[in-house]
Amino acid sequence: MTREELIALIRKKQSFLCIGLDTDMEKIPPCLMNEEDPVFSFNKRIIDATIDRAVAYKPNLAFYEARGAQGWQCLVKTIDYLKRHPGGPVLTIADAKRGDIGNTAKQYARAFFEEMDVDGITVNPYMGRDSVEPFISYKHKWTIVLALTSNPGGGDFQLLSTTQDPPQSLSAGEKTMPLYARVVQQCMQIGTAGQMMFVVGATRPAMLRSLRNMAPDHFFLIPGVGAQGGKLTEVAMEAMNQDVGLLINSSRGIIYASSEEDFDVRAGEAAADLQTQMKELLQGI
Amino acid sequence: MTREELIALIRKKQSFLCIGLDTDMEKIPPCLMNEEDPVFSFNKRIIDATIDRAVAYKPNLAFYEARGAQGWQCLVKTIDYLKRHPGGPVLTIADAKRGDIGNTAKQYARAFFEEMDVDGITVNPYMGRDSVEPFISYKHKWTIVLALTSNPGGGDFQLLSTTQDPPQSLSAGEKTMPLYARVVQQCMQIGTAGQMMFVVGATRPAMLRSLRNMAPDHFFLIPGVGAQGGKLTEVAMEAMNQDVGLLINSSRGIIYASSEEDFDVRAGEAAADLQTQMKELLQGI
Repeated sequence: MTREELIALIRKKQSFLCIGLDTDMEKIPPCLMNEEDPVFSFNKRIIDATIDRAVAYKPNLAFYEARGAQGWQCLVKTIDYLKRHPGGPVLTIADAKRGDIGNTAKQYARAFFEEMDVDGITVNPYMGRDSVEPFISYKHKWTIVLALTSNPGGGDFQLLSTTQDPPQSLSAGEKTMPLYARVVQQCMQIGTAGQMMFVVGATRPAMLRSLRNMAPDHFFLIPGVGAQGGKLTEVAMEAMNQDVGLLINSSRGIIYASSEEDFDVRAGEAAADLQTQMKELLQGI
Repeated sequence: MTREELIALIRKKQSFLCIGLDTDMEKIPPCLMNEEDPVFSFNKRIIDATIDRAVAYKPNLAFYEARGAQGWQCLVKTIDYLKRHPGGPVLTIADAKRGDIGNTAKQYARAFFEEMDVDGITVNPYMGRDSVEPFISYKHKWTIVLALTSNPGGGDFQLLSTTQDPPQSLSAGEKTMPLYARVVQQCMQIGTAGQMMFVVGATRPAMLRSLRNMAPDHFFLIPGVGAQGGKLTEVAMEAMNQDVGLLINSSRGIIYASSEEDFDVRAGEAAADLQTQMKELLQGI
């Protein structure tokens, strides 16, 4: 899905909602436990109930890998279900947070972009440019780089002030920069706004603003709204651009809205609630 | 495997060699391609031919995940083969480079430490302490944190000078510190030398020395000897401690020593060559 197609989809659905399919076997409603693959059954019903309200789905791979080969098959089935859904198209994102070097990163890129055929993958930048470039070489796929994450330890390293020592590219006026901003600055040199996004947590609005100034056109994938305390309106105010430029992720608040048999109905309502707020925010642009 | 058991194993085998099972389907000798699972057949013969010379094996997960559910099964079979091998025990390391937050990291920890039952896993620290702690809670397993990697882009972020802004724990005498050293400093606060190792590339000997001064007791898992240009003797001189404190990883130099039918014999010779050098280096301590 190209940037233009994504923007058109957002405008059509009046939504920039991404639903995190972090499906935990232990949180699945009891009524599904006799199904052949309870996680897949759960995912299908969540997708059916929410796809009119969402533009993207993001399964977190940990929850699938924790179940071994069976989990992988479930992930593949879920991606396939999303890609064939009559309520589509939607953007599919493998939340894999992979970060490995050239040869190995290429293996991952092939696994996700060719075999699984997802639209995007999240990438951890710690190992530098050769952990990002193999994904960028797929021109029509999205490389989604972790910049500033919303977890409690997110600041341990990402917020450190950094300088290049010895200075390599600092102009006279340039000073120190937090690590997360350095990541965005350097990654923008290898990925255009048409193929790269950044993960930026919702919990630090002032930093959202400064990153938007640095990367005016790139989409931000934003976790941390809801359960982690980030506010949708505040995020939109700081980081929305003329092309929207945002995907807001919600996982637990939607998929675990209820643990009863009506879990999918409640998930649909939770998604509708967010989408209604998004529709209002989209009026301004 | 405890730290004491690992040290005893190193002394018994006179080896601190870790063999990277980065088994690429495209590089497997043609003679194996008719096997039911060529990668597993390849791994078995490599393991049989090298286990007398090595103390650890490290499959890189990308090569297995690239093959989907089948690849996962192959990985599980390989770990199982290592754990039951009469030439064992050996340390098994899942080179997964995972880095995710609490809940999700817990899923990974369970998948690798309980279901797959490996002895150690590599972890990416970018997301901070709550991406490391879930692994640390397994007291008898190894959490192996990426610090300074040997790839060309390894320095893009890891070598940046960092300061805490605002200063939180800097004593008067403390100045800036490269990111990789900050990672080691902070992770040492949550993982003892009995359950944490650091990945430190062989290609920057002076930095190996400074990390050894900072972390005198922790084991370092060291890639980059051989193919990437690091020298074994130099690494030992800079970073060996009284308990050895090193695992030197070699992948391509051993497992692809030959692409002919005698690939396992040649792998055994390549491993023996490294182990002979290690035996000499161990005389001094």
